[in-house]
Amino acid sequence: MKYSFAEQTKHYSSSAVRDILNVIQQGNVISFAGGLPSDDFFPIEAVQSAYEKVFASGKSAMQYGLTEGFTPLREALQEVMKRKGIESTVETTLLTTGSQQVIDLFSRVMLSEGDVVLTEDPTYLAALQVFRSYGAKVVSVNSDEDGMVPEDLELKIKKYQPKFIYIVPTFSNPVGKIWSTQRRQKLVELCYQYNVLTLEDDPYGELRFSDEVYPPVASFDVNRTHVLYTSTFSKTVVPALRSGWVTGPAEVIGMISQGKQMTDLHSSSIDQQALYYIMRDFDLQRHVQTLREEYYRRMTIMRDCLKRLDPGLFKWQEPKGGMFMWIEGEDNLDVTKLLNAAVKNGVAYVPGAPFYVNEPKLNTFRINFSHSTPENIKLGMDRLVPVLLNQVTV
Amino acid sequence: MKYSFAEQTKHYSSSAVRDILNVIQQGNVISFAGGLPSDDFFPIEAVQSAYEKVFASGKSAMQYGLTEGFTPLREALQEVMKRKGIESTVETTLLTTGSQQVIDLFSRVMLSEGDVVLTEDPTYLAALQVFRSYGAKVVSVNSDEDGMVPEDLELKIKKYQPKFIYIVPTFSNPVGKIWSTQRRQKLVELCYQYNVLTLEDDPYGELRFSDEVYPPVASFDVNRTHVLYTSTFSKTVVPALRSGWVTGPAEVIGMISQGKQMTDLHSSSIDQQALYYIMRDFDLQRHVQTLREEYYRRMTIMRDCLKRLDPGLFKWQEPKGGMFMWIEGEDNLDVTKLLNAAVKNGVAYVPGAPFYVNEPKLNTFRINFSHSTPENIKLGMDRLVPVLLNQVTV
Repeated sequence: MKYSFAEQTKHYSSSAVRDILNVIQQGNVISFAGGLPSDDFFPIEAVQSAYEKVFASGKSAMQYGLTEGFTPLREALQEVMKRKGIESTVETTLLTTGSQQVIDLFSRVMLSEGDVVLTEDPTYLAALQVFRSYGAKVVSVNSDEDGMVPEDLELKIKKYQPKFIYIVPTFSNPVGKIWSTQRRQKLVELCYQYNVLTLEDDPYGELRFSDEVYPPVASFDVNRTHVLYTSTFSKTVVPALRSGWVTGPAEVIGMISQGKQMTDLHSSSIDQQALYYIMRDFDLQRHVQTLREEYYRRMTIMRDCLKRLDPGLFKWQEPKGGMFMWIEGEDNLDVTKLLNAAVKNGVAYVPGAPFYVNEPKLNTFRINFSHSTPENIKLGMDRLVPVLLNQVTV
Repeated sequence: MKYSFAEQTKHYSSSAVRDILNVIQQGNVISFAGGLPSDDFFPIEAVQSAYEKVFASGKSAMQYGLTEGFTPLREALQEVMKRKGIESTVETTLLTTGSQQVIDLFSRVMLSEGDVVLTEDPTYLAALQVFRSYGAKVVSVNSDEDGMVPEDLELKIKKYQPKFIYIVPTFSNPVGKIWSTQRRQKLVELCYQYNVLTLEDDPYGELRFSDEVYPPVASFDVNRTHVLYTSTFSKTVVPALRSGWVTGPAEVIGMISQGKQMTDLHSSSIDQQALYYIMRDFDLQRHVQTLREEYYRRMTIMRDCLKRLDPGLFKWQEPKGGMFMWIEGEDNLDVTKLLNAAVKNGVAYVPGAPFYVNEPKLNTFRINFSHSTPENIKLGMDRLVPVLLNQVTV
């Protein structure tokens, strides 16, 4: 039978993230391709203990729950948000299946065919796929190392009247950039001036390598009217629980909640209850401090290996947090073609091309330092660097 | 700020299911309104033991998983499907956040604005909301106590060229109907003849009160090309795990999987792993047998209370399974108006109106017998019957 799918499926692109996962699961390849946290530090005893508390709380814990999510966890998140300078309430906080679902549900309630979303370029590829799947046009804003350039942002807002702006301002994926405070403030000012919404995606903010704090863009939205903030427990606790949250203007959260009810009624409430006990009884701050130190150590090993590359041929910056390094080779380098050689040599990275909104830079790639052990980072880089050098000298 | 939502949100209707949940959570009201399984029989020890096995299996169990879901559980479901006469493979089986997500994702990949979906009338209201949220037009097919009338189904297929047919053929929600084998076969024949897909939603099929087996409609789709089958663990294990599945034509499942990747990457894999151990180590068949017996007992108590109503004024049938009874009052009865009086008297039901595709019958309502204890069923019916009788005599 020939199946006649919805028009919107023409926007579905090849599933790059899934392909990445497939590469990871091949036997002897050391993969720097994915965006996975390290298994080594999963606080499994704390997670197990939390589930035991869920079961001890009685059978009603196993029943259907609210679409918005388990209320005590939403209450606990108010405190988390407050520490970041974001005022929220139980009513303006919604629990989801990871922050990916926030990107999808927010798009679903905002975007009609032909609407415009403004982003940086490159940006998180699975967000680009979602925006396009709803028929939206993605327009990139010029940006430098401090974030979107305000003049170009204002120009594009006026020209395209976008439905919203999507940003990952702290240790961005894939580039690892940190927006300056000034740029964060300026974006909110423009949102107020032109009545545009922003979705601030912050999966990596906690994974900073110094004590320097980067205030979320949402913290400058003092009226709580223009910026939605989303984050996830996938990077700080464990990914398997698939729990994220969003907080933002009550009316928008309410509409997202209606969308979520149709999508799946609610996310796993057993997982949400376990996360509540983790936040109540486990020293998550101290655990995150461990992650910071260990990820920093892994990053420095990867960084030191990269120093063997000629800085005239390969450009990269030392990240101040997050999980990724972003490398740009010579103009004529095609890293997608090079990937086969790398995988044959037992190492994988992810080409930068799918992260681009416009013309992809074929000479860019992203490597992840959080998932591999220090030993495997050394081993993998010993496999990767020669491939890169050969390519350059051939 | 005035928010400008997507055009499709105009199809979002008031969240009837959520309103039901709100009524349930009021203190002293005995609610027959929701569609909840009984807390009393949740196999909490088996669930707890399964999670212990997940934690014992190591830290990698906490990592990101495949979009399609935990492979060993998908393998185990092949056996479940085989017992129902449905051939499936790991590749044609996808795990979701409840079967509600199957309804949503299938609609997302199939429906464009103006497309037609054929359903019975009344039918599952949260499915109607989903279809309409994608801009589809829902057209009802005439049906009698044996299911959709083939002549009208063929007529509507020819007239509307629907994207798919949505059915709940075994203990349907809200009516509790069972389609005859002949009607099931005939529907598949028409799907083959006119190249139309069917989504068979079977959340209640296991909850039968006799040994009579009703072969799923999908079991007649011998080519495995035209019928998708979805079910859930919410009614047989526990709802909090929010786990359902779908099996169907490989190409359609593949497209749904692409949609799911954008929606939430994957559902909770910790829950899926726990379900795998439950299916491996727990006598789920025996547990379901207990549910059948206990739900039958509860239904008979509710039925006996209903016998106090004048059969000339109230029509209802004894269900052969599932969780619901469907009652039709006199033509001039408005049960929505009556609901306030019922709630004041400490009992709630759900009016039939929102389940209708076309003109709602305001004199119909649904009551649930699975969630309340036998004592509360008696008490609640002692509160409900006088309300119904007063209304009739006023």
